[in-house]
Amino acid sequence: MAGRSGRRPGTSDTKDAILHAARRTFGDRGYDAASIRAIASAASVDPALVHHYFGSKQQLFLAAVNAPIDPGEILSRVIDGDRADLGHRLVRTFVAVWDGPAGIAAAAMLRSAIGNEWAGKLFREFIVTQLLRRVRSELGLDTADAPLRMSLVAGQMAGLAMVRYVLLIEPLASAPAEVIVASIGPTVQRYLIGDLAPDA
Amino acid sequence: MAGRSGRRPGTSDTKDAILHAARRTFGDRGYDAASIRAIASAASVDPALVHHYFGSKQQLFLAAVNAPIDPGEILSRVIDGDRADLGHRLVRTFVAVWDGPAGIAAAAMLRSAIGNEWAGKLFREFIVTQLLRRVRSELGLDTADAPLRMSLVAGQMAGLAMVRYVLLIEPLASAPAEVIVASIGPTVQRYLIGDLAPDA
Repeated sequence: MAGRSGRRPGTSDTKDAILHAARRTFGDRGYDAASIRAIASAASVDPALVHHYFGSKQQLFLAAVNAPIDPGEILSRVIDGDRADLGHRLVRTFVAVWDGPAGIAAAAMLRSAIGNEWAGKLFREFIVTQLLRRVRSELGLDTADAPLRMSLVAGQMAGLAMVRYVLLIEPLASAPAEVIVASIGPTVQRYLIGDLAPDA
Repeated sequence: MAGRSGRRPGTSDTKDAILHAARRTFGDRGYDAASIRAIASAASVDPALVHHYFGSKQQLFLAAVNAPIDPGEILSRVIDGDRADLGHRLVRTFVAVWDGPAGIAAAAMLRSAIGNEWAGKLFREFIVTQLLRRVRSELGLDTADAPLRMSLVAGQMAGLAMVRYVLLIEPLASAPAEVIVASIGPTVQRYLIGDLAPDA
Protein backbone atom coordinates (compact mmCIF):
# COMPACT_ATOMS: atom_id res chain seq x y z
CA MET A 1 0.00 0.00 0.00
CA ALA A 2 3.05 2.28 0.10
CA GLY A 3 3.84 5.05 -2.33
CA ARG A 4 0.43 6.11 -3.52
CA SER A 5 1.52 9.70 -3.93
CA GLY A 6 -1.08 12.22 -5.00
CA ARG A 7 -3.91 10.33 -3.35
CA ARG A 8 -4.73 10.22 0.30
CA PRO A 9 -5.28 6.64 1.44
CA GLY A 10 -8.96 6.14 2.04
CA THR A 11 -10.43 4.36 5.02
CA SER A 12 -11.13 1.20 3.08
CA ASP A 13 -7.56 1.05 1.73
CA THR A 14 -6.25 1.29 5.27
CA LYS A 15 -8.64 -1.35 6.55
CA ASP A 16 -7.70 -3.63 3.68
CA ALA A 17 -4.02 -3.12 4.41
CA ILE A 18 -4.59 -4.04 8.04
CA LEU A 19 -6.59 -7.14 7.13
CA HIS A 20 -3.94 -8.22 4.65
CA ALA A 21 -1.18 -7.76 7.24
CA ALA A 22 -3.31 -9.57 9.82
CA ARG A 23 -3.83 -12.62 7.58
CA ARG A 24 -0.13 -12.81 6.85
CA THR A 25 0.93 -12.36 10.45
CA PHE A 26 -1.65 -14.72 11.94
CA GLY A 27 -0.78 -17.30 9.28
CA ASP A 28 2.98 -17.01 9.77
CA ARG A 29 3.16 -16.75 13.56
CA GLY A 30 -0.10 -18.29 14.73
CA TYR A 31 -2.81 -16.51 16.68
CA ASP A 32 -1.06 -16.38 20.03
CA ALA A 33 2.27 -15.00 18.82
CA ALA A 34 0.77 -12.44 16.43
CA SER A 35 0.48 -9.10 18.23
CA ILE A 36 -1.58 -6.09 17.21
CA ARG A 37 1.70 -4.18 17.28
CA ALA A 38 3.31 -6.52 14.75
CA ILE A 39 0.26 -6.41 12.50
CA ALA A 40 0.14 -2.61 12.66
CA SER A 41 3.83 -2.48 11.82
CA ALA A 42 3.36 -4.80 8.83
CA ALA A 43 0.53 -2.57 7.63
CA SER A 44 2.53 0.62 8.32
CA VAL A 45 -0.13 2.08 10.58
CA ASP A 46 -0.37 2.99 14.24
CA PRO A 47 -1.59 0.18 16.54
CA ALA A 48 -4.29 2.52 17.84
CA LEU A 49 -5.78 2.60 14.36
CA VAL A 50 -6.03 -1.19 14.33
CA HIS A 51 -7.94 -1.11 17.61
CA HIS A 52 -10.07 1.75 16.31
CA TYR A 53 -11.17 -0.15 13.21
CA PHE A 54 -11.30 -3.71 14.51
CA GLY A 55 -11.45 -3.67 18.31
CA SER A 56 -9.66 -6.56 20.01
CA LYS A 57 -7.14 -8.96 18.54
CA GLN A 58 -9.82 -11.60 18.54
CA GLN A 59 -12.23 -9.39 16.61
CA LEU A 60 -9.47 -8.57 14.13
CA PHE A 61 -8.76 -12.25 13.69
CA LEU A 62 -12.43 -13.05 13.02
CA ALA A 63 -12.55 -10.24 10.45
CA ALA A 64 -9.29 -11.39 8.86
CA VAL A 65 -10.50 -14.96 8.33
CA ASN A 66 -13.98 -13.82 7.23
CA ALA A 67 -15.44 -15.91 10.03
CA PRO A 68 -19.02 -16.74 9.09
CA ILE A 69 -20.08 -16.90 12.73
CA ASP A 70 -19.36 -15.31 16.06
CA PRO A 71 -17.98 -18.29 17.98
CA GLY A 72 -18.74 -16.72 21.35
CA GLU A 73 -22.42 -16.44 20.59
CA ILE A 74 -22.65 -19.92 19.10
CA LEU A 75 -20.69 -21.65 21.82
CA SER A 76 -22.84 -20.28 24.62
CA ARG A 77 -25.75 -22.19 23.06
CA VAL A 78 -23.66 -25.36 23.29
CA ILE A 79 -22.14 -24.95 26.72
CA ASP A 80 -25.24 -23.82 28.64
CA GLY A 81 -27.36 -26.72 29.79
CA ASP A 82 -27.20 -30.29 31.01
CA ARG A 83 -23.79 -31.94 30.63
CA ALA A 84 -25.47 -35.20 29.64
CA ASP A 85 -26.72 -33.58 26.41
CA LEU A 86 -23.56 -31.69 25.56
CA GLY A 87 -22.65 -33.73 22.48
CA HIS A 88 -26.18 -33.54 21.15
CA ARG A 89 -26.31 -29.76 21.64
CA LEU A 90 -22.97 -29.32 19.92
CA VAL A 91 -24.07 -31.33 16.88
CA ARG A 92 -27.49 -29.66 16.80
CA THR A 93 -25.96 -26.18 16.93
CA PHE A 94 -23.31 -27.06 14.33
CA VAL A 95 -25.92 -28.38 11.90
CA ALA A 96 -28.21 -25.38 12.50
CA VAL A 97 -25.36 -22.97 11.67
CA TRP A 98 -24.27 -24.86 8.55
CA ASP A 99 -27.83 -25.44 7.36
CA GLY A 100 -28.47 -21.70 7.78
CA PRO A 101 -27.24 -18.67 5.83
CA ALA A 102 -23.73 -18.85 7.35
CA GLY A 103 -23.28 -22.31 5.84
CA ILE A 104 -22.30 -21.05 2.42
CA ALA A 105 -19.53 -18.90 3.88
CA ALA A 106 -18.47 -21.75 6.14
CA ALA A 107 -18.19 -24.15 3.20
CA ALA A 108 -16.15 -21.57 1.28
CA MET A 109 -13.84 -21.25 4.29
CA LEU A 110 -13.45 -25.02 4.45
CA ARG A 111 -12.74 -25.29 0.72
CA SER A 112 -10.08 -22.62 0.71
CA ALA A 113 -8.56 -23.95 3.94
CA ILE A 114 -7.95 -27.28 2.31
CA GLY A 115 -6.94 -26.17 -1.15
CA ASN A 116 -4.38 -23.65 0.08
CA GLU A 117 -1.68 -24.26 2.67
CA TRP A 118 -1.67 -20.74 3.99
CA ALA A 119 -5.47 -20.49 4.27
CA GLY A 120 -5.26 -23.87 5.98
CA LYS A 121 -3.00 -22.43 8.68
CA LEU A 122 -5.47 -19.61 9.35
CA PHE A 123 -8.35 -22.09 9.45
CA ARG A 124 -6.48 -24.29 11.91
CA GLU A 125 -5.82 -21.26 14.11
CA PHE A 126 -9.53 -20.42 13.91
CA ILE A 127 -10.59 -23.92 14.97
CA VAL A 128 -7.96 -24.29 17.68
CA THR A 129 -8.02 -20.83 19.27
CA GLN A 130 -11.59 -19.67 18.66
CA LEU A 131 -13.53 -22.90 18.97
CA LEU A 132 -11.65 -25.71 20.71
CA ARG A 133 -9.90 -23.53 23.27
CA ARG A 134 -13.18 -21.91 24.27
CA VAL A 135 -15.08 -25.15 24.51
CA ARG A 136 -12.33 -26.62 26.63
CA SER A 137 -12.09 -23.56 28.85
CA GLU A 138 -15.84 -23.11 29.34
CA LEU A 139 -16.25 -26.81 30.14
CA GLY A 140 -13.32 -26.63 32.55
CA LEU A 141 -11.58 -29.59 30.89
CA ASP A 142 -8.04 -29.57 32.21
CA THR A 143 -7.06 -33.23 32.16
CA ALA A 144 -4.01 -34.40 30.23
CA ASP A 145 -6.22 -35.85 27.51
CA ALA A 146 -8.20 -32.63 26.94
CA PRO A 147 -6.25 -31.60 23.82
CA LEU A 148 -6.77 -35.06 22.30
CA ARG A 149 -10.49 -34.84 23.10
CA MET A 150 -10.72 -31.46 21.40
CA SER A 151 -8.98 -32.67 18.25
CA LEU A 152 -11.25 -35.74 18.11
CA VAL A 153 -14.28 -33.44 18.25
CA ALA A 154 -12.74 -31.30 15.51
CA GLY A 155 -12.27 -34.39 13.36
CA GLN A 156 -15.84 -35.61 13.73
CA MET A 157 -17.29 -32.17 13.02
CA ALA A 158 -14.97 -31.43 10.10
CA GLY A 159 -15.90 -34.78 8.57
CA LEU A 160 -19.62 -34.14 9.05
CA ALA A 161 -19.18 -30.77 7.31
CA MET A 162 -17.31 -32.38 4.43
CA VAL A 163 -19.77 -35.20 3.83
CA ARG A 164 -22.95 -33.14 4.31
CA TYR A 165 -21.95 -29.80 2.80
CA VAL A 166 -18.96 -30.27 0.50
CA LEU A 167 -18.86 -33.82 -0.89
CA LEU A 168 -22.66 -34.22 -0.59
CA ILE A 169 -22.60 -37.92 0.21
CA GLU A 170 -26.14 -39.25 0.70
CA PRO A 171 -28.11 -39.81 2.80
CA LEU A 172 -26.13 -37.69 5.27
CA ALA A 173 -26.21 -34.75 2.85
CA SER A 174 -29.98 -34.42 3.11
CA ALA A 175 -30.81 -36.20 6.37
CA PRO A 176 -33.00 -34.30 8.87
CA ALA A 177 -30.97 -32.55 11.55
CA GLU A 178 -32.35 -34.75 14.31
CA VAL A 179 -31.13 -37.93 12.59
CA ILE A 180 -27.64 -36.48 12.60
CA VAL A 181 -27.93 -35.30 16.19
CA ALA A 182 -29.11 -38.74 17.33
CA SER A 183 -26.31 -40.62 15.57
CA ILE A 184 -23.32 -38.25 15.91
CA GLY A 185 -24.30 -36.65 19.25
CA PRO A 186 -23.22 -39.71 21.28
CA THR A 187 -19.85 -39.73 19.50
CA VAL A 188 -19.18 -36.10 20.36
CA GLN A 189 -20.39 -36.65 23.91
CA ARG A 190 -17.88 -39.48 24.32
CA TYR A 191 -15.05 -37.48 22.76
CA LEU A 192 -15.81 -34.50 25.03
CA ILE A 193 -16.37 -36.09 28.42
CA GLY A 194 -16.90 -39.85 28.02
CA ASP A 195 -14.61 -42.86 28.13
CA LEU A 196 -12.11 -42.32 25.32
CA ALA A 197 -11.04 -45.97 25.00
CA PRO A 198 -13.99 -48.01 26.24
CA ASP A 199 -12.66 -51.29 24.83
CA ALA A 200 -9.16 -50.94 26.23
CA MET B 1 -1.74 -54.03 -16.65
CA ALA B 2 -2.63 -54.83 -20.23
CA GLY B 3 0.05 -56.28 -22.49
CA ARG B 4 2.29 -53.72 -24.08
CA SER B 5 3.19 -55.65 -27.21
CA GLY B 6 3.42 -53.60 -30.36
CA ARG B 7 3.86 -50.28 -28.57
CA ARG B 8 3.90 -47.38 -30.99
CA PRO B 9 4.22 -43.61 -30.73
CA GLY B 10 0.82 -42.22 -29.89
CA THR B 11 -0.03 -44.85 -27.31
CA SER B 12 0.32 -42.47 -24.42
CA ASP B 13 -1.72 -39.83 -26.25
CA THR B 14 -4.48 -42.36 -26.72
CA LYS B 15 -4.33 -43.44 -23.09
CA ASP B 16 -4.41 -39.81 -21.97
CA ALA B 17 -7.41 -39.14 -24.18
CA ILE B 18 -9.22 -42.12 -22.67
CA LEU B 19 -8.38 -41.03 -19.12
CA HIS B 20 -9.52 -37.49 -19.86
CA ALA B 21 -12.81 -38.74 -21.33
CA ALA B 22 -13.22 -41.10 -18.39
CA ARG B 23 -12.81 -38.32 -15.81
CA ARG B 24 -15.33 -36.16 -17.63
CA THR B 25 -17.85 -38.95 -18.10
CA PHE B 26 -17.56 -40.37 -14.58
CA GLY B 27 -17.83 -36.85 -13.17
CA ASP B 28 -20.84 -35.88 -15.28
CA ARG B 29 -22.86 -39.10 -15.11
CA GLY B 30 -21.56 -40.82 -11.99
CA TYR B 31 -19.84 -44.18 -11.89
CA ASP B 32 -22.87 -46.36 -12.47
CA ALA B 33 -24.26 -44.52 -15.49
CA ALA B 34 -20.89 -44.02 -17.19
CA SER B 35 -20.32 -46.86 -19.67
CA ILE B 36 -17.08 -47.91 -21.30
CA ARG B 37 -18.90 -47.37 -24.60
CA ALA B 38 -19.71 -43.73 -23.73
CA ILE B 39 -16.15 -43.10 -22.56
CA ALA B 40 -14.71 -44.65 -25.70
CA SER B 41 -17.03 -42.53 -27.79
CA ALA B 42 -15.99 -39.35 -25.95
CA ALA B 43 -12.35 -40.27 -26.57
CA SER B 44 -13.05 -41.23 -30.21
CA VAL B 45 -11.63 -44.73 -29.82
CA ASP B 46 -13.01 -48.22 -30.01
CA PRO B 47 -14.36 -49.62 -26.71
CA ALA B 48 -12.10 -52.64 -27.16
CA LEU B 49 -9.10 -50.33 -26.91
CA VAL B 50 -10.34 -49.01 -23.56
CA HIS B 51 -10.57 -52.57 -22.24
CA HIS B 52 -7.20 -53.37 -23.75
CA TYR B 53 -5.45 -50.49 -21.98
CA PHE B 54 -7.35 -50.35 -18.71
CA GLY B 55 -9.21 -53.63 -18.16
CA SER B 56 -12.55 -53.31 -16.42
CA LYS B 57 -14.63 -50.20 -15.85
CA GLN B 58 -13.57 -50.30 -12.24
CA GLN B 59 -9.89 -50.45 -13.14
CA LEU B 60 -10.39 -47.56 -15.57
CA PHE B 61 -12.10 -45.56 -12.83
CA LEU B 62 -9.26 -46.17 -10.36
CA ALA B 63 -6.76 -45.06 -13.02
CA ALA B 64 -8.85 -42.01 -13.89
CA VAL B 65 -9.01 -40.76 -10.31
CA ASN B 66 -5.34 -41.62 -9.64
CA ALA B 67 -6.48 -43.77 -6.75
CA PRO B 68 -3.58 -44.07 -4.33
CA ILE B 69 -4.73 -47.49 -3.17
CA ASP B 70 -6.42 -50.63 -4.47
CA PRO B 71 -9.63 -50.59 -2.41
CA GLY B 72 -10.18 -54.33 -2.90
CA GLU B 73 -6.87 -55.22 -1.33
CA ILE B 74 -7.27 -52.77 1.53
CA LEU B 75 -10.84 -53.68 2.34
CA SER B 76 -10.11 -57.37 2.65
CA ARG B 77 -7.82 -56.48 5.56
CA VAL B 78 -10.75 -54.73 7.22
CA ILE B 79 -13.55 -57.19 6.51
CA ASP B 80 -11.73 -60.43 7.40
CA GLY B 81 -11.86 -61.17 11.10
CA ASP B 82 -13.98 -60.82 14.19
CA ARG B 83 -17.02 -58.56 13.79
CA ALA B 84 -16.49 -57.18 17.28
CA ASP B 85 -13.23 -55.55 16.15
CA LEU B 86 -14.47 -54.28 12.80
CA GLY B 87 -14.36 -50.58 13.66
CA HIS B 88 -10.90 -50.90 15.17
CA ARG B 89 -9.60 -52.75 12.10
CA LEU B 90 -11.07 -50.15 9.77
CA VAL B 91 -9.44 -47.27 11.65
CA ARG B 92 -6.14 -49.15 12.01
CA THR B 93 -6.03 -49.93 8.28
CA PHE B 94 -7.04 -46.39 7.34
CA VAL B 95 -4.30 -44.86 9.48
CA ALA B 96 -1.71 -47.36 8.21
CA VAL B 97 -2.51 -46.42 4.60
CA TRP B 98 -2.47 -42.68 5.24
CA ASP B 99 0.65 -42.83 7.42
CA GLY B 100 2.37 -44.81 4.64
CA PRO B 101 3.61 -43.80 1.19
CA ALA B 102 0.07 -43.65 -0.27
CA GLY B 103 -0.84 -40.93 2.22
CA ILE B 104 0.69 -38.10 0.21
CA ALA B 105 -1.34 -39.05 -2.86
CA ALA B 106 -4.43 -39.51 -0.72
CA ALA B 107 -4.05 -36.05 0.81
CA ALA B 108 -3.60 -34.56 -2.66
CA MET B 109 -6.80 -36.31 -3.75
CA LEU B 110 -8.64 -34.93 -0.73
CA ARG B 111 -7.36 -31.41 -1.33
CA SER B 112 -8.35 -31.31 -4.96
CA ALA B 113 -11.70 -32.96 -4.22
CA ILE B 114 -12.59 -30.16 -1.88
CA GLY B 115 -11.14 -27.23 -3.79
CA ASN B 116 -12.74 -28.18 -7.10
CA GLU B 117 -16.39 -29.09 -7.64
CA TRP B 118 -15.71 -31.48 -10.48
CA ALA B 119 -12.87 -33.29 -8.71
CA GLY B 120 -15.23 -33.44 -5.74
CA LYS B 121 -17.79 -35.35 -7.79
CA LEU B 122 -15.17 -37.91 -8.82
CA PHE B 123 -13.98 -38.23 -5.23
CA ARG B 124 -17.53 -38.78 -4.02
CA GLU B 125 -18.01 -41.48 -6.65
CA PHE B 126 -14.76 -43.07 -5.49
CA ILE B 127 -15.84 -43.12 -1.85
CA VAL B 128 -19.40 -44.24 -2.54
CA THR B 129 -18.85 -46.86 -5.24
CA GLN B 130 -15.37 -48.17 -4.47
CA LEU B 131 -15.29 -48.02 -0.69
CA LEU B 132 -18.71 -47.72 0.95
CA ARG B 133 -20.52 -50.00 -1.47
CA ARG B 134 -17.92 -52.71 -1.03
CA VAL B 135 -17.86 -52.48 2.74
CA ARG B 136 -21.63 -52.67 2.82
CA SER B 137 -21.77 -55.57 0.40
CA GLU B 138 -19.00 -57.58 2.03
CA LEU B 139 -20.53 -57.08 5.46
CA GLY B 140 -23.94 -58.04 4.10
CA LEU B 141 -25.55 -54.87 5.49
CA ASP B 142 -28.92 -54.64 3.81
CA THR B 143 -31.06 -52.88 6.41
CA ALA B 144 -32.83 -49.64 5.58
CA ASP B 145 -30.30 -47.65 7.59
CA ALA B 146 -27.26 -49.13 5.83
CA PRO B 147 -26.73 -46.10 3.54
CA LEU B 148 -26.87 -43.76 6.54
CA ARG B 149 -24.37 -45.96 8.38
CA MET B 150 -22.00 -45.86 5.43
CA SER B 151 -22.17 -42.06 5.15
CA LEU B 152 -21.55 -41.71 8.89
CA VAL B 153 -18.42 -43.84 8.54
CA ALA B 154 -17.34 -41.71 5.59
CA GLY B 155 -17.79 -38.57 7.68
CA GLN B 156 -15.74 -39.84 10.61
CA MET B 157 -12.93 -41.07 8.38
CA ALA B 158 -12.89 -37.95 6.18
CA GLY B 159 -12.68 -35.80 9.30
CA LEU B 160 -9.85 -37.88 10.73
CA ALA B 161 -7.98 -37.46 7.44
CA MET B 162 -8.53 -33.72 7.47
CA VAL B 163 -7.45 -33.14 11.04
CA ARG B 164 -4.48 -35.54 11.02
CA TYR B 165 -3.15 -35.10 7.48
CA VAL B 166 -4.41 -31.81 6.05
CA LEU B 167 -5.15 -29.30 8.82
CA LEU B 168 -2.57 -30.89 11.16
CA ILE B 169 -4.47 -30.18 14.37
CA GLU B 170 -2.55 -31.47 17.38
CA PRO B 171 -2.37 -33.82 19.16
CA LEU B 172 -4.32 -35.92 16.64
CA ALA B 173 -1.87 -34.98 13.89
CA SER B 174 1.00 -36.78 15.60
CA ALA B 175 -0.75 -39.22 17.94
CA PRO B 176 0.36 -42.88 17.78
CA ALA B 177 -1.89 -44.98 15.58
CA GLU B 178 -3.12 -47.05 18.51
CA VAL B 179 -4.41 -43.97 20.35
CA ILE B 180 -6.50 -43.14 17.30
CA VAL B 181 -7.66 -46.73 16.93
CA ALA B 182 -8.71 -46.88 20.59
CA SER B 183 -10.67 -43.63 20.50
CA ILE B 184 -12.19 -43.63 16.99
CA GLY B 185 -12.56 -47.42 16.57
CA PRO B 186 -15.63 -47.60 18.86
CA THR B 187 -17.28 -44.78 16.90
CA VAL B 188 -16.81 -46.57 13.60
CA GLN B 189 -17.95 -49.84 15.15
CA ARG B 190 -21.19 -48.17 16.27
CA TYR B 191 -21.73 -46.48 12.92
CA LEU B 192 -21.17 -49.78 11.09
CA ILE B 193 -23.12 -52.29 13.15
CA GLY B 194 -23.98 -50.80 16.56
CA ASP B 195 -26.96 -48.89 17.93
CA LEU B 196 -27.20 -45.74 15.83
CA ALA B 197 -29.26 -43.72 18.31
CA PRO B 198 -28.44 -45.17 21.73
CA ASP B 199 -30.02 -42.27 23.64
CA ALA B 200 -33.27 -42.22 21.69
